[in-house]
Amino acid sequence: MSLQIDRRDLAFLLYEVLDVATLPERPRFAGQGREVYDAVLDTLEGVAAEHYAPFRKANDQQEPALVDGRVITNPGLQQGWDAVAETGIIAATHDEARGGMQLPHVIASAAIAFLEAANIGSASYPMLTAGAANLIAAFGSEAQRQRWLPRMLAGTWSGTMALTEPDAGSSLADLRTSARPLPDGTYAIEGTKIWISGGDHQLTGNIVHLVLARIAGAPEGTKGISLFIVPRNTVAEDGTVGGSNHVTLAGLIHKMGWRGTTSTLLNFGERGTCVGHLVGEPHKGLAYMFHMMNEARIGVGRAGAAMSYAAFRYAVEYARTRRQGRVPGEKDPTRPPVAIVEHADIRRLLLTAKCAAEGSLALVLECARLVDEQETGATEAARQEAGLLLEVLTPIAKTWPAVYGQEGISSALQVMGGYGYAREYDVEQLYRDNRLNQIHEGTNGIQALDLLGRKVPQAHGAAFALLGTRIAAAAREAAAADPALAPLAQQLGAALERMGAVTTRLLAAMAQEPARGLANATVYLECASRVVYAWLWLRQATVASRALAAGATGREADFYRGKLQAARFYFGQELPRTLADADVLERNDASAFEMQDAWF
Amino acid sequence: MSLQIDRRDLAFLLYEVLDVATLPERPRFAGQGREVYDAVLDTLEGVAAEHYAPFRKANDQQEPALVDGRVITNPGLQQGWDAVAETGIIAATHDEARGGMQLPHVIASAAIAFLEAANIGSASYPMLTAGAANLIAAFGSEAQRQRWLPRMLAGTWSGTMALTEPDAGSSLADLRTSARPLPDGTYAIEGTKIWISGGDHQLTGNIVHLVLARIAGAPEGTKGISLFIVPRNTVAEDGTVGGSNHVTLAGLIHKMGWRGTTSTLLNFGERGTCVGHLVGEPHKGLAYMFHMMNEARIGVGRAGAAMSYAAFRYAVEYARTRRQGRVPGEKDPTRPPVAIVEHADIRRLLLTAKCAAEGSLALVLECARLVDEQETGATEAARQEAGLLLEVLTPIAKTWPAVYGQEGISSALQVMGGYGYAREYDVEQLYRDNRLNQIHEGTNGIQALDLLGRKVPQAHGAAFALLGTRIAAAAREAAAADPALAPLAQQLGAALERMGAVTTRLLAAMAQEPARGLANATVYLECASRVVYAWLWLRQATVASRALAAGATGREADFYRGKLQAARFYFGQELPRTLADADVLERNDASAFEMQDAWF
Repeated sequence: MSLQIDRRDLAFLLYEVLDVATLPERPRFAGQGREVYDAVLDTLEGVAAEHYAPFRKANDQQEPALVDGRVITNPGLQQGWDAVAETGIIAATHDEARGGMQLPHVIASAAIAFLEAANIGSASYPMLTAGAANLIAAFGSEAQRQRWLPRMLAGTWSGTMALTEPDAGSSLADLRTSARPLPDGTYAIEGTKIWISGGDHQLTGNIVHLVLARIAGAPEGTKGISLFIVPRNTVAEDGTVGGSNHVTLAGLIHKMGWRGTTSTLLNFGERGTCVGHLVGEPHKGLAYMFHMMNEARIGVGRAGAAMSYAAFRYAVEYARTRRQGRVPGEKDPTRPPVAIVEHADIRRLLLTAKCAAEGSLALVLECARLVDEQETGATEAARQEAGLLLEVLTPIAKTWPAVYGQEGISSALQVMGGYGYAREYDVEQLYRDNRLNQIHEGTNGIQALDLLGRKVPQAHGAAFALLGTRIAAAAREAAAADPALAPLAQQLGAALERMGAVTTRLLAAMAQEPARGLANATVYLECASRVVYAWLWLRQATVASRALAAGATGREADFYRGKLQAARFYFGQELPRTLADADVLERNDASAFEMQDAWF
Repeated sequence: MSLQIDRRDLAFLLYEVLDVATLPERPRFAGQGREVYDAVLDTLEGVAAEHYAPFRKANDQQEPALVDGRVITNPGLQQGWDAVAETGIIAATHDEARGGMQLPHVIASAAIAFLEAANIGSASYPMLTAGAANLIAAFGSEAQRQRWLPRMLAGTWSGTMALTEPDAGSSLADLRTSARPLPDGTYAIEGTKIWISGGDHQLTGNIVHLVLARIAGAPEGTKGISLFIVPRNTVAEDGTVGGSNHVTLAGLIHKMGWRGTTSTLLNFGERGTCVGHLVGEPHKGLAYMFHMMNEARIGVGRAGAAMSYAAFRYAVEYARTRRQGRVPGEKDPTRPPVAIVEHADIRRLLLTAKCAAEGSLALVLECARLVDEQETGATEAARQEAGLLLEVLTPIAKTWPAVYGQEGISSALQVMGGYGYAREYDVEQLYRDNRLNQIHEGTNGIQALDLLGRKVPQAHGAAFALLGTRIAAAAREAAAADPALAPLAQQLGAALERMGAVTTRLLAAMAQEPARGLANATVYLECASRVVYAWLWLRQATVASRALAAGATGREADFYRGKLQAARFYFGQELPRTLADADVLERNDASAFEMQDAWF
């Protein structure tokens, strides 16, 4: 079990870094406490170990198949779904009055990470269902809540997000699925959606699609999109499941990874009236969907964090037991080979994997903690600040666990050599699975435009400035806590300052010519991500340093020394990459912008 | 066909950059010329398109299976083998007197790249056979050459390299396979080898394994290893194939990619005497094997170059035809979507793929050209210099097309979004296939130790100094040819100078404490690779600039402008990464070196 996510590390992040134990002081979490939280984590870790991990390979090797128009899945998928539904985790953060557990997001998120580390192909189904349910809870009418939510939260039905169309991948403005008003106030939905994860299967009694479509006569572009609840089978007002609602499976897509999760092409209303129920007001669908999408984006980040974490733990285990070669300078071939963790380059690879995995987990838990703060913070100012930080951190949380996490998984694979590359072992699957996270829920390029084009300039740069304030405060605190951390604090301060100067220049360039100013948005996102991870690592180092000063011994001391050394590695080898990023951004290098199609 | 490797680019590298048209002035290539060379390229490009590319997916989806003790492969594998054997390419560089074509290595290498771009799972069989044959040609006795070579060169038999053992992956010093002298001068081989590519199949009448083993009583370590020819079936002196030589297939390993190539666990002599024929002198096997391994390492680089090239061309094709979204600043949603190549971030991804693919091809052809120079250079000095450059470039040619090429393939995949990730398309397979190239024939870490620990210090740094001289000369030539290239030349000069200073410091550190001095060898390899690619891109830019100045027009001008712009992108966005590398190396960052096992 410990191969997936280290419980000691999780406790460190939750209780020593993020101070989660104080949350029960707030009314919403009254009566809860660390015992409750640890029990939830125990339960999900147990389910992950017993019902998820054993089927990771089955999901990969016996992927869902279309047989006589029905999707047939391996037995592990049903077992995993049932076990997770049983835990109530789909409703974890919902009100107790609605059957939820009213848990903090940060605890629910940590618990779900066990599932994602163990088997992402299975974990996606409950996560998509939770996302769809949260959207109905936030924007649906009371009648809609009563009709759809209880069964979704209980895991009787599942849910999906149906946005993308074959001719409009990242470009939601070009959606063509239509919604024609019917006399009873519902709509007839017609169109085709692609890449719909969990879009068809036999795991649940019904599937509730949340579909973006245009009502006849709606404005062009993103301002004419509405959101609909479209069940696979019709549902009477009392919740009884009826016949087909004419959502038909047109095909399964076969991906490099995430093979357990059906990826579908769905036709709506091709063979009969497909009824959709409008959520909220017409033409506001995109804003609603972005509510779920922000959550989904942080969820993608958490999945990447979890997968890279699993790969890291596999590699550490391998490096400790695999004996091979001798250290440089040892000339005697009769001496026994050393465990490969003794080789400096193996430790470099493992530290890369550790910094990516633990840094990514720290980031996504930070974001979940900010969601709690946004919802339950003591003051209006605290809630607003949390919201601002979340805005600016979301594109980073979506992207960097996918990108840096992939480097971590690749490093873990490299530690294991040929074994890492073989399907007889686990890491190559994680390498394939995690690669998707740079694509779905908005590609890296889309996140980069979101960060530099929207989140940084919005509200006169308030979110970006607030993040800078927090980072600077963490640097001061680190230097004050431990003189040995002062050089790291100084290095972070310098990176932050350079980033600020670059931001000013790029905003000016964008004002002159948007396309040119945004041409290096992805490099900007990379640079910002590296600075944010440095912030997260320095905070962890500060906590670790204080614990060591307070007298931690034995394995506890080893744990904290590992955190400190990882921070040193991060600042010694990873943060310097911002030297290259900043060089590109300061020149706002125009080579890609000026390239022409005909020259390729 | 042009989706695989652009013939215009290949002609540019061969005839405009590497001056291959002058090779027929040398006695060995007398009577040849560009027409001959282009005919060879035409032939292999045709075979790749007709018999290789159509089976790339079949190799991936119907991988070799063990049925009743026999390896069953998909029909494409046999068709590909037969078609390639027919071309004579296995014998391309061998003497005409032995049935070869006596072609320059640079031409043979370019021709083979078509096969590797089209289907690496099939291409590996002839390449391994050529490698084994070259080894026998170089170190076997005349009797051995006559007995083994004709059938291997004709493709009647295939060959393998059997080095690795389960308990000694990268550490050849720990090989345990034994060779017991038999009365007739042959040896009885006993042991187990793992990851033997092409180790069993039914494609050819026999398989000739080149096996490393220890003769009883040999010294420990690498100085006690000998090389043997070990056929799957016995071969009489007249070449007649007999019964089993007791090489038994103990299992197939299933990899993430390269699925068409059988990866085998082989037992030698477990069920009866397995006869091996000693090649050359006892205990010199490793030196002989390294002859083949250097060739194999450059071959791995070429495979990586070819795969990243194919991915690049797929992505360009996709980006030109896929229409989606609008450029920043365009507010009118009724305007039609643009081809995605119009988005600056897509061009950035494509330029990354272009720089990696074309830069890697330039490097491996440079190396092949140096092999020709080493063998047929006009003067002893020219031959020696070529040899020195090859020594220092080999670890880079092995590693960087695998690492940077993977970044290129990942960029190509990203351009295609969900389609790039789907197995219904081609790029995800290239992403899986190329990942192996960082592992086999010596991992990145092994190459890094080879570069910094052996190649750079050897002969008082002669090879490294010579490479520096060549790079500096190219920079001067670029600045002289075109004032617009002067800033790039200056940037390369600065990177080279910083690299030289770092090298001096690291060599001093290694003299004091080898393990500490070599702790960042991989970062050194990365830095050196980026500088070498800058050299290759600046030379291409120089040729392109001259061609434009000489009046190239139309599509020719577009081609040269593409080369110039790619060079600008490389110097604008990729070479700056050496700022981070040099920062790490100047401090000889000790964070990984000082990390301890217990802290993970």
